[in-house]
Amino acid sequence: MTQGIHGTVADGFEAVREEFAAVVAGELPDYEGQLCAYLHGRRVVDLWACGADSADADSLYGVHSATKGAAHLVAALLVQEGTLELDRRVTYYWPEFAAEGKDALTLRDLLAHRAGVIGTDTGFTTAELADDRVIAERLADQRPYWRPGTAFGYHALVLGALVGEVVRRATGHTLQEVYEERVRAPHHLDFHLGLPAALDHRFRTAGPAVPAPVREASSVSPADGPRTLAAIAFNRNTAHPTDLATLPNEPVVRAAGPASVGGVASARGLAGMYAAATGELDSRAALLKPDTVAEFGQFHSVGHDLVTRTHGSYGLGFQATADVWHPFLGAGTIGHSGAGGCQAFADPAGGLAYGYTRRRSVRPGGAAPENQRLVAAVHTAALAC
Amino acid sequence: MTQGIHGTVADGFEAVREEFAAVVAGELPDYEGQLCAYLHGRRVVDLWACGADSADADSLYGVHSATKGAAHLVAALLVQEGTLELDRRVTYYWPEFAAEGKDALTLRDLLAHRAGVIGTDTGFTTAELADDRVIAERLADQRPYWRPGTAFGYHALVLGALVGEVVRRATGHTLQEVYEERVRAPHHLDFHLGLPAALDHRFRTAGPAVPAPVREASSVSPADGPRTLAAIAFNRNTAHPTDLATLPNEPVVRAAGPASVGGVASARGLAGMYAAATGELDSRAALLKPDTVAEFGQFHSVGHDLVTRTHGSYGLGFQATADVWHPFLGAGTIGHSGAGGCQAFADPAGGLAYGYTRRRSVRPGGAAPENQRLVAAVHTAALAC
Amino acid sequence: MTQGIHGTVADGFEAVREEFAAVVAGELPDYEGQLCAYLHGRRVVDLWACGADSADADSLYGVHSATKGAAHLVAALLVQEGTLELDRRVTYYWPEFAAEGKDALTLRDLLAHRAGVIGTDTGFTTAELADDRVIAERLADQRPYWRPGTAFGYHALVLGALVGEVVRRATGHTLQEVYEERVRAPHHLDFHLGLPAALDHRFRTAGPAVPAPVREASSVSPADGPRTLAAIAFNRNTAHPTDLATLPNEPVVRAAGPASVGGVASARGLAGMYAAATGELDSRAALLKPDTVAEFGQFHSVGHDLVTRTHGSYGLGFQATADVWHPFLGAGTIGHSGAGGCQAFADPAGGLAYGYTRRRSVRPGGAAPENQRLVAAVHTAALAC
Repeated sequence: MTQGIHGTVADGFEAVREEFAAVVAGELPDYEGQLCAYLHGRRVVDLWACGADSADADSLYGVHSATKGAAHLVAALLVQEGTLELDRRVTYYWPEFAAEGKDALTLRDLLAHRAGVIGTDTGFTTAELADDRVIAERLADQRPYWRPGTAFGYHALVLGALVGEVVRRATGHTLQEVYEERVRAPHHLDFHLGLPAALDHRFRTAGPAVPAPVREASSVSPADGPRTLAAIAFNRNTAHPTDLATLPNEPVVRAAGPASVGGVASARGLAGMYAAATGELDSRAALLKPDTVAEFGQFHSVGHDLVTRTHGSYGLGFQATADVWHPFLGAGTIGHSGAGGCQAFADPAGGLAYGYTRRRSVRPGGAAPENQRLVAAVHTAALAC
Repeated sequence: MTQGIHGTVADGFEAVREEFAAVVAGELPDYEGQLCAYLHGRRVVDLWACGADSADADSLYGVHSATKGAAHLVAALLVQEGTLELDRRVTYYWPEFAAEGKDALTLRDLLAHRAGVIGTDTGFTTAELADDRVIAERLADQRPYWRPGTAFGYHALVLGALVGEVVRRATGHTLQEVYEERVRAPHHLDFHLGLPAALDHRFRTAGPAVPAPVREASSVSPADGPRTLAAIAFNRNTAHPTDLATLPNEPVVRAAGPASVGGVASARGLAGMYAAATGELDSRAALLKPDTVAEFGQFHSVGHDLVTRTHGSYGLGFQATADVWHPFLGAGTIGHSGAGGCQAFADPAGGLAYGYTRRRSVRPGGAAPENQRLVAAVHTAALAC
Repeated sequence: MTQGIHGTVADGFEAVREEFAAVVAGELPDYEGQLCAYLHGRRVVDLWACGADSADADSLYGVHSATKGAAHLVAALLVQEGTLELDRRVTYYWPEFAAEGKDALTLRDLLAHRAGVIGTDTGFTTAELADDRVIAERLADQRPYWRPGTAFGYHALVLGALVGEVVRRATGHTLQEVYEERVRAPHHLDFHLGLPAALDHRFRTAGPAVPAPVREASSVSPADGPRTLAAIAFNRNTAHPTDLATLPNEPVVRAAGPASVGGVASARGLAGMYAAATGELDSRAALLKPDTVAEFGQFHSVGHDLVTRTHGSYGLGFQATADVWHPFLGAGTIGHSGAGGCQAFADPAGGLAYGYTRRRSVRPGGAAPENQRLVAAVHTAALAC
């Protein structure tokens, strides 16, 4: 028997509910997931499926790399107000970063996945991956894996720590603190970088990855060696390789909320953050001005991603979601998917914000395939409004 | 009953006639098209098929983006004589272009589809698309859609206007005037940027696009959203989206001949222009010196085209036809195809110039598939000469 | 009857012997080939198959572009000791190179296949291809085929000559002389740039290419025109196009050992050179320090290769073998394949060096397909050690 769909959709979004129901019907019986969308600041899709268990709209899931969306929103806020300047060298804020030929790199390069310090030759322990300061210290000493300026590659587990160190040096506060104060708390978003103990009971332990015999190739399909660029970037070059799918199950990771992959959120939280970033929400002005959104959404790194060995497209830290995932979305769409299968973005031209979570990941990582259908359904319904 | 093929071929080019006949036999009964080629300044192929109607070698068709070939020939002439300098900033000629972070862009960047101002957030009316000055004025204020210097994308409907504004500022004449005086009139070319009323009776109204169930993917296959980069570049981000296929049917477009897509030509005109540009024709010296051809044919933008989302290769404005369409052509081939299905180029190393028109376009845009067979046949015959 | 496999493997590498035997069993009866690998300076694989003839481990084969690995090792040695500086302009060493807009090119650009002088408009004779000084002189006058700085392409037959000329100007010795004195002789490597007459009896004449009806596409599949970039790069733009497969059969080529494609080696020689370059071998210190290896292995040119029209990845002269051929190899792997089917590389992170030769080439050029299986087998066995 197919499990039920819970929640509501606004008038005109009925087809999204149907599409979500169709997606759930094709999944395993224990499927849990949430889907949320905002149109011009109004929540128009708010759905979830709770598997055999008691999950609901307030359930929280590890969102892996979608965390980077929150990290880069902080960077954008600080650039907007002048605290950070994109074309300054990273070493202006963080002198130790100069080691091994990285002195000329700008903050813009760093945000655009161009620094080349995707990891270290020896890898990290889980405790280290939970601590952005440790990551940053280690990477300050690391030689880039490609010549700065010639290429780019996905800094999967570390970009948030690198940006976070710049934030910390410039403001005296961690990126997580700035995010909490400036973004999360004012909008009551269920998207946490560092989950308070009091909310930990709402966290849903990530289950094992769903076997996926016939899935289309994802943007992250690292080859199978222990010392490849992908292995370094995903911390598989150690005696205890990271299992990305279950990383949020580590209490130390959840509690610290490292800015690359440690976030915990509901779909409401994901979509709400992008809605708040790019438009009016709950009578508050958009966090980012259109010019700031446009600058962070401008394509900065486009082409062969040396880590994933596939086509990649990045703005400043954000994925160019329209180029990589959903080509019908508007120019200037900013977002970030996560290895657990979640997807989140704002399409500012369309006034759309989207969030999706699921409990069990789908191999290989990145936005789960059903997002193709769900984003298309939401987009089509929004256009007809 | 298959319709007949008209015209002549030089000795050694009989196989081209056969290939053209085979192409026509596979088309709909109302097919109209022209094929022309020059080898070392001699017209060696001059064929046409006239459908159910009275078309002939003097019939004129909208050539869409092949128009850009004429526009860039003007730019090359002015660079050759020193009126324009490729490495000067665009703002040296056109100060208003500096807005929104475009001040450092050079003429070279502009010609190489790197400026990033592929359209505007609000789109154009058809009347505006017919007027290069209006387009240029609007784009001067536009923020680039990608960070200048990081990427490139096809400026489908506007590149001619941007280059034209530089020409106008530098010479006091429109690009169309320079083209008429320096290129078209001296060689009596049937390739018009601005069709005189007296010749309008030779224009063949573009018919509806041919349904094409099984066609190979073209270089332009924009995704289906109304605010994508492709939508902006092809002016589909408006209440009245442009139907590119029938745009030349608008009298205002034909009469003005906007330099991106407004040209009207026969195959003789297309091939003749490239023959005149790169070699001796009718006892006149080549318009361009070999060094100028080589510079405009040098690859300048190669890789992922952000607008078409496919592999693109451009010299200075010209398509690198050998890299994109016909890999057996010589290095340094310059050309430009058009959305109606036409194709035109010069292969200077082989002494070859080619032009092809057809009345009804083939979806998706770009050079129609039959060009693969026709160019191969012409090239093979030319090699054997 | 299947021919036998000769040679030895170290404990733990038995599966490599089996894989090699399986490869040989699938080849024609006259197959000849050698396979050699080092792990942390110890020879762990040393196998050969000798066809119907008396080939053995000391047989020498033309290794075509794998020669470039030796050439770039010389460049790396001279950079390491300060004789050459990567970021100096080529013209600092070689003033005549400035012609036709090449004055700003650095040695780094040159090594990274970015110079654009892949050949000449008129091609070379075989005697000229054997003489690096003649090649260099001709290319000094040549206009680049793409705008320096915008793209890259495989300098198939000439890169060694260009680098060699820089070496000669800076040291007063040819690249071949430096290689002999600093690399080959001290390690007694059977990898010769210029084969002494006394050893010529060990050279195995390259046979005709093996017909290969169903082979996967290689990285080098030039289109079929006589004036394409590929034709220029592979010297097919002349009245007497080069047959790359049999080029080493020319005594003048073997004797001179031009640094792009004229090397002659056994698999022991290939693997031994990479072992000596990156690690301790026969109680001698590694020729290159880890920092030098890392710099030459850093990705410098990644993306669309204008000559091969496929995805290319280069460090400084070396192929980024892990990105192009064997994705499971470690980051920083340096190597070079050859058109005869050979493959050679060092994976410094894994302490692995690999060499493979075969007598008859496989169309199209580049590392022969069986390297996929053989490298995987060696890598898997090495990991388990």
